[in-house]
Amino acid sequence: MDNRPIGFLDSGVGGLTVVRELIRQLPQEEVVYVGDSARAPYGPRPAEQIREFTWQLVRFLLTKNVKMIVIACNTATAIVWEEIKEKLDIPVIGVILPGAGAAIKASQTGRIGVIGTPMTIQSDIYREKIQFLAPQIEVISLACPRFAPLVESNEINSSLAKKVVYESLAPLAEAELDTLVLGCTHYPLLGALIQRVMGSNVSLIDSGAECVRDISVLLNYFQLNRSWSAGSSRHQFYTTASAKSFQDIAESWLKQTIDVEHVDL
Amino acid sequence: MDNRPIGFLDSGVGGLTVVRELIRQLPQEEVVYVGDSARAPYGPRPAEQIREFTWQLVRFLLTKNVKMIVIACNTATAIVWEEIKEKLDIPVIGVILPGAGAAIKASQTGRIGVIGTPMTIQSDIYREKIQFLAPQIEVISLACPRFAPLVESNEINSSLAKKVVYESLAPLAEAELDTLVLGCTHYPLLGALIQRVMGSNVSLIDSGAECVRDISVLLNYFQLNRSWSAGSSRHQFYTTASAKSFQDIAESWLKQTIDVEHVDL
Repeated sequence: MDNRPIGFLDSGVGGLTVVRELIRQLPQEEVVYVGDSARAPYGPRPAEQIREFTWQLVRFLLTKNVKMIVIACNTATAIVWEEIKEKLDIPVIGVILPGAGAAIKASQTGRIGVIGTPMTIQSDIYREKIQFLAPQIEVISLACPRFAPLVESNEINSSLAKKVVYESLAPLAEAELDTLVLGCTHYPLLGALIQRVMGSNVSLIDSGAECVRDISVLLNYFQLNRSWSAGSSRHQFYTTASAKSFQDIAESWLKQTIDVEHVDL
Repeated sequence: MDNRPIGFLDSGVGGLTVVRELIRQLPQEEVVYVGDSARAPYGPRPAEQIREFTWQLVRFLLTKNVKMIVIACNTATAIVWEEIKEKLDIPVIGVILPGAGAAIKASQTGRIGVIGTPMTIQSDIYREKIQFLAPQIEVISLACPRFAPLVESNEINSSLAKKVVYESLAPLAEAELDTLVLGCTHYPLLGALIQRVMGSNVSLIDSGAECVRDISVLLNYFQLNRSWSAGSSRHQFYTTASAKSFQDIAESWLKQTIDVEHVDL
């Protein structure tokens, strides 16, 4: 048993989709979350800057005595997960391998779509990981640069959101996918819209939700679960931008009241 | 990368349900399987004997230079997984925690059923692991002692099988489950029958299939994946009983021709 919290980092609020799944699947665990909304989205930034920002978030989490770090951001995972995992002596989990594995499991036809930020799609890491595991699978990738900013500005159900989602996904209409990876942790907040555009025959893979299975596997394997006798969880949330607007999105998504502090990195 | 095979053990043919998922999800991996059909089922045996038999199977797999051992048998996992995991310096995976985690993830109502061998149900290990992770969940357990022998004798679609499945699951009719864990790796071979009796609103959790997600997580985490450049996989199957009857069941289940050798432990 290990009663320390699990650290989550994201470019902004997207990683909250992972936290929501964690709270549902592993309700006794405690979360320290840091979102870099002041500099979100990471997707269009150069790789070296993403690397530097992500390490800043990691160092911040380490000051909070975390037992594990979850890089709840596909872009950061694509660029710097392996390096961070190498350097730290606690487990470090990214969101890409879990999403890739779940997509392979879900797909019957072997035609898998991936949507993500420009950097994630440009890195081609989903194709690499999916075909590393199962080379017969065809991967069709599409960058959706307008999705994460919609979510960061809490425009999840607006008519603008509908328009953007319809327009952005149009290139996939003829792709004959049976599975679509939401390769950015912001996208599950647009999940209902995306499902409507793609049709009910396409399975959406929430890379963040899948990542909670990995968290659970490694907590079990390394015997790091938090004990129930440690009392109820007190999650901590930090953002580099406005605490108020982070709190609005987080409370509506997590369906609970939370405390948010602003932090300068 | 690590091109050595993964070792699987089971009391008999049930673990083939895990192998089938492995071949589907991780087709580049290579399998060494040993089934103790001569002494199956393990379910009604005393714990000390299950422990001794399982260690014999583990020692056999170690002679095959495996990189990981999968205890593809719920009964053996319940009794001896933790001890084997402690003693070996390669990863050792059981089927119970994966099944428990997947059931928690699947259940919306928090009423989960578990069916298994008498020993698995008597050990109460599914309830223990599920409530360790999520204590609010109610677990309704039922031993189905007649299921594994049906599968070992390849009576999967017979009228006897239908009768046994209907009769055995009758006590769950009023239990208002939304999720049922197939807590024995033999049971997915009766999956279609079980689904028909339980109704389409109950999600069946195949503990073996879920276990392949854990295998994948740990292969990735420890960087033990087999390289594609190592060539196509040559699986090896061993049974303590008749090679012929093992082969009949295995080939129809795995939908490929395989070689089976008899082995005395």
